[in-house]
Amino acid sequence: MRFDIITVLPGLLESPFAHSILQRAQKKGLVEIHVHNLRDYAENKHKSVDDYPYGGGSGMVMQIGPFAACIEGLKAERNYDEVVFMTPDGVTLNQSIANGFALKENLIILCGHYKGIDQRIRDIYVTKELSVGDYVLSGGELPAAIVVDAVTRLIPGVLSDETSALSDSFQGELLDAPVYTRPADWKGYVVPDILLSGNQSAIENWRYEQALARTKERRPDLLDE
Amino acid sequence: MRFDIITVLPGLLESPFAHSILQRAQKKGLVEIHVHNLRDYAENKHKSVDDYPYGGGSGMVMQIGPFAACIEGLKAERNYDEVVFMTPDGVTLNQSIANGFALKENLIILCGHYKGIDQRIRDIYVTKELSVGDYVLSGGELPAAIVVDAVTRLIPGVLSDETSALSDSFQGELLDAPVYTRPADWKGYVVPDILLSGNQSAIENWRYEQALARTKERRPDLLDE
Repeated sequence: MRFDIITVLPGLLESPFAHSILQRAQKKGLVEIHVHNLRDYAENKHKSVDDYPYGGGSGMVMQIGPFAACIEGLKAERNYDEVVFMTPDGVTLNQSIANGFALKENLIILCGHYKGIDQRIRDIYVTKELSVGDYVLSGGELPAAIVVDAVTRLIPGVLSDETSALSDSFQGELLDAPVYTRPADWKGYVVPDILLSGNQSAIENWRYEQALARTKERRPDLLDE
Repeated sequence: MRFDIITVLPGLLESPFAHSILQRAQKKGLVEIHVHNLRDYAENKHKSVDDYPYGGGSGMVMQIGPFAACIEGLKAERNYDEVVFMTPDGVTLNQSIANGFALKENLIILCGHYKGIDQRIRDIYVTKELSVGDYVLSGGELPAAIVVDAVTRLIPGVLSDETSALSDSFQGELLDAPVYTRPADWKGYVVPDILLSGNQSAIENWRYEQALARTKERRPDLLDE
């Protein structure tokens, strides 16, 4: 699977893609992540890619030309399944969308910055507008990294223990049960006896009850679906 | 305002905090971001901070000792408003939570990794469990960066144009209206005439109608609240 990310801040994405699971997935050849500097496609010597909004108002708006040039260049080389724009007014990312993306081959992700991007980019090129949540961020870079991380870990072979991804919260309909590890007694705070019992079916029952109780308390909406 | 982030992957957070608004906010002295390597608080020579889960099952669980040592050390130096744990089963971050955090002075943010963290850390130390959305990620590092970004941009003086933050999507009850910038005609795709009219009150009316229509279409739930 291949991600092409277009941004004015390629440096911001360096370290998230160079560590942990994303680093290993790239080394294994399971995923390619290409970050493109939008300024390389600027149409002027100052390398500016934004301008004042028509009709006035605060903030700068990213121009269509540089995005168009970068997207067209990529599309000339291969087919893309989606051109995704990260924006707070997009569809909210969830596990089901991440699962669907994990089956794709090539994705372009556009990162906005400043006040927004020229609406014509969205009208002409973007096939999916995606939000990571109901909050405002400085730009689409961290959201793009979120998408890449959420999707990459679902690609077969990326996680060493495939059951890890399948048993995560949101892959089933329940949140995770509490987990504990050594020491069994930490300054008087002890691990529930059942987990030390060795009775595996009792442990599985306890975990199910705990997961159900936590879901009922925290996210009853997940049980209604 | 001060953020203390505790993680096994401090390097992952380097570039997000070294660019753009977060970089400038730190240079201006408006925010301090301290990233602590959990392994510095490991209790063994191998610097391991995780172990197998009690009761069996896949994935590793982060131990209480290193987190406790790091948190206690920080608390000995200053008071913290909240100890936040980033977890998919926490309360979902929204703009109202970000606004509330922007009024705080000192926050500790714990990043989980692997299968999860020992439940006793959550029971004893954590005051707020926060999710950035209904999807599973490799760890709490990107979510922590999301929180720092969402909150920092709300601190007075961080954004050059304060109206930019106030007019963002989710600060009012409507999504943003479409924005356009030069050129007015791009390969036949033109900017709406009204934005070129110079009639400011007509433009404001158009923007309100567009924002309302976009909100009705995409996020009618925001209008019901």
